[in-house]
Amino acid sequence: MKILIVGGVAGGASAAARARRLSETAQIIVFERGPDVSFANCGLPYYVGGEIADRGKLLVTTPQRLRQRFRLDVRIRTSVEAIDREAKRVRARDLATGREYDETYDKLILSPGAAPVRPPLPGLDLPGVCTLRNLADVDGIKACVDRGVRRAVVVGGGFIGLEIVENLVRRGVNTTLVELRDQVLPQWDREMTTPLLESLTGQGVAVRLGQSVTELTPAAEGLEVHLTGGDRLPAELVVLGVGVRPDNRLAVQSGLEIGSGGGIRVNESLQTSDPDVYAVGDAIEVTHVVTGEALSIPLAGPANRQGRLAADHILGRTVRYRGTQGTSIVRVFDRTAAMTGATEAMLVRQARPCRKVYIHPAHHAGYYPGAQPMTLKLLFHPETGRILGAQAVGGLGVDKRIDILAVAIQAGMTVFDLEEMELAYSPQFGSAKDPINMAGFVAAGLLRGDHPQVDWETVLGLESESPPRLLDVRTAAEFARGSVPGALSIPLDELRERLDELPRDRTIAAFCQVGQRGYVATRILSQHGFPACNVGGGYKTYRLFHPEHP
Amino acid sequence: MKILIVGGVAGGASAAARARRLSETAQIIVFERGPDVSFANCGLPYYVGGEIADRGKLLVTTPQRLRQRFRLDVRIRTSVEAIDREAKRVRARDLATGREYDETYDKLILSPGAAPVRPPLPGLDLPGVCTLRNLADVDGIKACVDRGVRRAVVVGGGFIGLEIVENLVRRGVNTTLVELRDQVLPQWDREMTTPLLESLTGQGVAVRLGQSVTELTPAAEGLEVHLTGGDRLPAELVVLGVGVRPDNRLAVQSGLEIGSGGGIRVNESLQTSDPDVYAVGDAIEVTHVVTGEALSIPLAGPANRQGRLAADHILGRTVRYRGTQGTSIVRVFDRTAAMTGATEAMLVRQARPCRKVYIHPAHHAGYYPGAQPMTLKLLFHPETGRILGAQAVGGLGVDKRIDILAVAIQAGMTVFDLEEMELAYSPQFGSAKDPINMAGFVAAGLLRGDHPQVDWETVLGLESESPPRLLDVRTAAEFARGSVPGALSIPLDELRERLDELPRDRTIAAFCQVGQRGYVATRILSQHGFPACNVGGGYKTYRLFHPEHP
Repeated sequence: MKILIVGGVAGGASAAARARRLSETAQIIVFERGPDVSFANCGLPYYVGGEIADRGKLLVTTPQRLRQRFRLDVRIRTSVEAIDREAKRVRARDLATGREYDETYDKLILSPGAAPVRPPLPGLDLPGVCTLRNLADVDGIKACVDRGVRRAVVVGGGFIGLEIVENLVRRGVNTTLVELRDQVLPQWDREMTTPLLESLTGQGVAVRLGQSVTELTPAAEGLEVHLTGGDRLPAELVVLGVGVRPDNRLAVQSGLEIGSGGGIRVNESLQTSDPDVYAVGDAIEVTHVVTGEALSIPLAGPANRQGRLAADHILGRTVRYRGTQGTSIVRVFDRTAAMTGATEAMLVRQARPCRKVYIHPAHHAGYYPGAQPMTLKLLFHPETGRILGAQAVGGLGVDKRIDILAVAIQAGMTVFDLEEMELAYSPQFGSAKDPINMAGFVAAGLLRGDHPQVDWETVLGLESESPPRLLDVRTAAEFARGSVPGALSIPLDELRERLDELPRDRTIAAFCQVGQRGYVATRILSQHGFPACNVGGGYKTYRLFHPEHP
Repeated sequence: MKILIVGGVAGGASAAARARRLSETAQIIVFERGPDVSFANCGLPYYVGGEIADRGKLLVTTPQRLRQRFRLDVRIRTSVEAIDREAKRVRARDLATGREYDETYDKLILSPGAAPVRPPLPGLDLPGVCTLRNLADVDGIKACVDRGVRRAVVVGGGFIGLEIVENLVRRGVNTTLVELRDQVLPQWDREMTTPLLESLTGQGVAVRLGQSVTELTPAAEGLEVHLTGGDRLPAELVVLGVGVRPDNRLAVQSGLEIGSGGGIRVNESLQTSDPDVYAVGDAIEVTHVVTGEALSIPLAGPANRQGRLAADHILGRTVRYRGTQGTSIVRVFDRTAAMTGATEAMLVRQARPCRKVYIHPAHHAGYYPGAQPMTLKLLFHPETGRILGAQAVGGLGVDKRIDILAVAIQAGMTVFDLEEMELAYSPQFGSAKDPINMAGFVAAGLLRGDHPQVDWETVLGLESESPPRLLDVRTAAEFARGSVPGALSIPLDELRERLDELPRDRTIAAFCQVGQRGYVATRILSQHGFPACNVGGGYKTYRLFHPEHP
């Protein structure tokens, strides 16, 4: 068995090592364009910032190690130029010498990854304009920063953009973030990105949302970045992080099927339209676990898993790649944002039914010092309660809750299962009613009808003849610090005595800070015959949609 | 509807608040012996140590708050002396005045909790001898420490014992821990407690395992604690944490069914043998989710859940308590230990088939600074791969992995599902192959037969004519720092060249540091015709069974 692998990072490296573990006799050749295999892609920004001080740490393994331990024939600085599927051979080119040669295969695995999108902008080739894909890129950026760059512009507010921003700021670089959409993390539901925006601006980052770059021009000191609005930003360094595109060149050239988004199409065994050619990693199109959509979701974990499964299948095993659910996480200064499954935007786009709840718990028991706040949005099916997606932003403990919900989605669990989850509790790590249980209580209560709940969008968007009466049930002090325009204030603990102040002919939309007192208020009001509902997630959620400092 | 609740902490408080949310009209009376309701049980040790500085923080809520917000009739310092089930009334006693009176009920909820076991020892009533159950107890211990106690003995190495030890040491008290069993955390599998023992001794705690207290006597300065071995330990403070016993007094008195372990027997709706009497919390017997055993598992999370469900059932809902899986966690100095589901000891005791793996991953990507080691033991069914239990000990990230496995157990997932889990990865939070995935790979590989694996107990316990040849495949430097007696050293990267040094007539038991290189070695050896197996979890696991400093 002769296996060729194109690409020696993540998926390719995983496939190669796995193939060797399964077969001592297979001939395995790995072609890698760059000088490194299996480097720590996700660590690159932290080398710029200095948190990872030793460049060697970024090399997860070396060609030597792979040769010695796994008897892999690793050919770095070697590009695969073409595939002849009929003859089952590839054309390889040694980039150092220019020598070209053919190599035949029994099975071929494509793991070319994804390439940073380079929008067709004038000035993109000027010195000081970079993308971030590999160690050479990061060396370039780091060299700039080490030279004492003072002003940088990062274009694109996705994961990589935010990570680069954080690390440039860490190095004392005055940084502007430009993002085309009106939010950072364009893949997220907008309101959930508000805390990140606050964190960025709080750290002195100038954030330009809803704008894009039209041109880059040379200036006395470095560059000028021209924005759609007409502004010009001076910068000595410009990092483009406007997304990645599946590197499908070889697949297109050799006539393999490509998905509508440009990803290489594969079946559940990771085979392309040619059963002897596999494809894995950021270059392929995957099935979204929740929505069933075929799309590109470039993530390291799935890439590794796919590599492993492709090797398994080549060596005779039955495998099934279950799809990707988009579990991902980013740290931006003091905030962590993580998600799994579908977003509301994604579900709305597909006209899929969903309900949502927001909760704002502390990451561990409030009575123990150091509790950090978190906001968790949970999406679920309005009838079955099946969990469809979650986004969380906060500090410590965000990763844990999203991982738990990722497993719940994998297992097909419902919000009713969240109520019952038995999680590890001592005051340093959680609460007797963990945020996950709380999310379950709120969502299950809503589905059971315990808890008539309405969303802020609905309350504030209603243009009916009798819009609901907004009732703020927080304390007078909380009310005084700011509330929703037009809200009446009756603190929860006075509610039973002041029922006569409330209208009986309009729905009362009660709210508190996070939703819990509003819930109790709603229970009291309903049982006293008032048409009442709780505005989900309370004033804290209102503030996600209507930031205090927009 | 008139509902009486005996006990105003955890389960009782949850039941009361839930009942009010469901019914504004129910009459709800809560009897609590002590002066406080709903206090932070699990926070008490940290008030002694000073991490929780403000005593008020331990009061999760107050009787006033419960009266005002939930219209609960909370009667503190009131003991329920007897139940007349036929007349459906209880006899209550105001502990301040001694006044006794009757109160009738439609439904009664018992939430009396569990009481610390007080072994029948001479001297138990001497001043300076305490248990830890409520705020009064903790006030006593704290007062002792504040007075400048220099030497303390903690009896019992369970969760509470360890937490008290940590907090006494934090306050500079010279502390000895005495535990009857030959391990701390007696509910755990012994080898997994080795890292905790190391941490305790590393912090200067004198740990006396396999010993018990026979007597306490007064001494010039405080007390003398007499041990079974004959030693006498001087101490000014003795804290007993030898376990708790369900407080079943009322239930026994009134003829309710009691389980063999002393817990009040309830059905899935939390009803006792009398359908108008419910019982929740530490006083009841629950069904273990994994083993089906009926036993007492005193934990805050389940207590709260049970309280909520009892109220739901009383107010007309269909509920089913799914059982308890024993998810729990403790921090001991720099180590965190957490578990969920069954232990190996539990499964062996019940003669249930199980397999196990040990892994020793870092809690996040090794290339990012601050990665902390963890040891994870996973128990699963030898045929189906169903996850039966897990124990983990380490630093950061232990809570997350155990919670993930707790959810996996709840969902009935298998080790094959762990391989596929898509968890949030960026280098601060995990690895592209998370410890959970790694555990899945190792366990699933074992079940698929990729990975002939043997346990240290088996390798070292074999008394056959041809015991396996132990092969250490770590580097020469690692071997030199210590290995297993009798092991041959051939580093993995030299193995293919040195196959002729190995016997062909005996099984070769290969091992490395954590199991991964041993696995690759086993794959190489098997494919070259050697009967070979990997010793699961490598040398690090060996050291759990055979500590360097026992």
